[in-house]
Amino acid sequence: MPAFNPHLWCVILAGGVGSRFWPASTPTVPKQLLPLGSERPLIRDTVDRILPLIPAERLRILAGAHLSAPLLGELTELGPDNLLVEPGAAGTAPVLAWAAAELVRQDPDAVMISLHADHVIHPPGAFRALLEEAASLAVRHRRLFTIGARPTRPETGYGYIGVGADLPGGGCEVAEFIEKPDRATAKSYVASGEFLWNTGLFVWRAADLLEQLARWTPELADALPLARAGDTEGFFRAVPTLSIDEGLLERSDRVGVVAATFEWDDVGAWDAMFRTRPTDENGNVGVGEVFPVECQRVALYTSDGPVVAYGVQDLVVVRTAGVTFVTTPERAPDLKKLLVRLPEEIRG
Amino acid sequence: MPAFNPHLWCVILAGGVGSRFWPASTPTVPKQLLPLGSERPLIRDTVDRILPLIPAERLRILAGAHLSAPLLGELTELGPDNLLVEPGAAGTAPVLAWAAAELVRQDPDAVMISLHADHVIHPPGAFRALLEEAASLAVRHRRLFTIGARPTRPETGYGYIGVGADLPGGGCEVAEFIEKPDRATAKSYVASGEFLWNTGLFVWRAADLLEQLARWTPELADALPLARAGDTEGFFRAVPTLSIDEGLLERSDRVGVVAATFEWDDVGAWDAMFRTRPTDENGNVGVGEVFPVECQRVALYTSDGPVVAYGVQDLVVVRTAGVTFVTTPERAPDLKKLLVRLPEEIRG
Repeated sequence: MPAFNPHLWCVILAGGVGSRFWPASTPTVPKQLLPLGSERPLIRDTVDRILPLIPAERLRILAGAHLSAPLLGELTELGPDNLLVEPGAAGTAPVLAWAAAELVRQDPDAVMISLHADHVIHPPGAFRALLEEAASLAVRHRRLFTIGARPTRPETGYGYIGVGADLPGGGCEVAEFIEKPDRATAKSYVASGEFLWNTGLFVWRAADLLEQLARWTPELADALPLARAGDTEGFFRAVPTLSIDEGLLERSDRVGVVAATFEWDDVGAWDAMFRTRPTDENGNVGVGEVFPVECQRVALYTSDGPVVAYGVQDLVVVRTAGVTFVTTPERAPDLKKLLVRLPEEIRG
Repeated sequence: MPAFNPHLWCVILAGGVGSRFWPASTPTVPKQLLPLGSERPLIRDTVDRILPLIPAERLRILAGAHLSAPLLGELTELGPDNLLVEPGAAGTAPVLAWAAAELVRQDPDAVMISLHADHVIHPPGAFRALLEEAASLAVRHRRLFTIGARPTRPETGYGYIGVGADLPGGGCEVAEFIEKPDRATAKSYVASGEFLWNTGLFVWRAADLLEQLARWTPELADALPLARAGDTEGFFRAVPTLSIDEGLLERSDRVGVVAATFEWDDVGAWDAMFRTRPTDENGNVGVGEVFPVECQRVALYTSDGPVVAYGVQDLVVVRTAGVTFVTTPERAPDLKKLLVRLPEEIRG
């Protein structure tokens, strides 16, 4: 397979808010527009990571209309033709079906790589090599491939994939998809070596996705012709909210998995900064004008004046959008429990 | 002694910065102008506390010229005649000598109560009653009285007074003045019941102070006639920096102490908020728009947008003057060690 397979396309899901990054993330400045993986926004890193493999004309960014201007403001090499504007939120099954239909209308042989705008991945070369391999396998086996990441900790916030039998030439069948497990189960998965994190990164022929949806996903089957015909509004009016995992991957017998050879993080909450940003010798990380003095394991983030921490440990301190927020790394993933307890005008 | 002894005067020392309240305290907005004891600035509380005992015309606020406008802006019932404008910082010995000389020029029999602008005292009635008693004793015994507070913890940030023999009618002689002790010594002082905190609050006949200074304080003796003559600039040019404790009280045989019957706090650093402000049922305190959620013993202070703390303990969080600052209650008194390590433009 050549380095620039002319049928290789990439869609980047960029419609989420990332509410666990409150107060930095808001509907109009969502997580993917924040510098959480490097000095630049996550979406910028995501696009740069894929561009050496897929040229801009075969790149599509999926997001609501309210994000078109901020996304194009950041991604100056892209234009309106690179946007697939979602009329509303509907879960990954209808969104990916619609994206696949859009690609098939332009290229019936399109191989579709589906990425998220807010993941951190190192090193990018290994990432691109694996996507090429998965694309080759998708064409060869006509399977829907998901990328699995080797678990490095018993994370309870991720889904897991039980790896099945080897496929000829690379990749494996999927034995099972597991929703977020409890901690003991997650530990046993990590120890066994037979489970991968479900990254939500996919590679498949766009036409194969539509065919499999027509077969396995009655919730969408009747609406698919609307998507194929380019009636985006009609399609989204007709479909329920449904995830691609529940709506198709857990049902289909034509899925596969390839194991990542790169580090992957979905940057789920503020504590992800400790994994995705360089730490100093005391385990501190920072974005913006930050001064940790005699601190250990503090994450400081500011877009609004200096943040000074003195003699504290295991803390997340955020100043942005007119709000000061302090929590622990352990509490950071539970941010939604906090938000419901705050007055609406504070929550934003 | 009548409730409004016509010779009773009050001077309030309001010239300090309170640099341990960085970033809130600055040379132009010093600690005494911040709402650290109630919803109103400390100087406002201090003046209100004394006004029922001493009318405004016998009240004097001592501070540098740069604070005249902010002080009168807060103390709207006072005017320029209530200010004693210090030409420069020189320690409490020359400042109190000068203030005493100013009072004597207006009232040779002036009894001078010297307060600090930034103390928190409860209840105010007991405070005023003790000042009246001390004033009566000062006239009767012709001694320089200091107010001692009953120690409630082995504080190492305060000076202590060893209480001597009882004086007839009330008050005691002073056995010794002790600079800030180490923790073990402070514990023994608290346990013994024979030591009081040196509050820096004084009551004496102004003329007696000048007489004692002339006798015991050669560093000032030659300059005192300048102060008596109203040559403020000349006086301050002629005197060294010297504290009243070191320069006079530790030398004189005409000092005395009365034990406070009120709660007293000098609001030395951010951790003082836990003592001077009402706490919620989890020991949290706050100034401004603050939201401690599932927190214990956190002090939150903001003049600049909400501060939200989630699931943290034993923390001080400050947002003001464009700076976000986080430390522990234990570290708060050591703030000066932090400040020297920050860039000057952050330090302010």
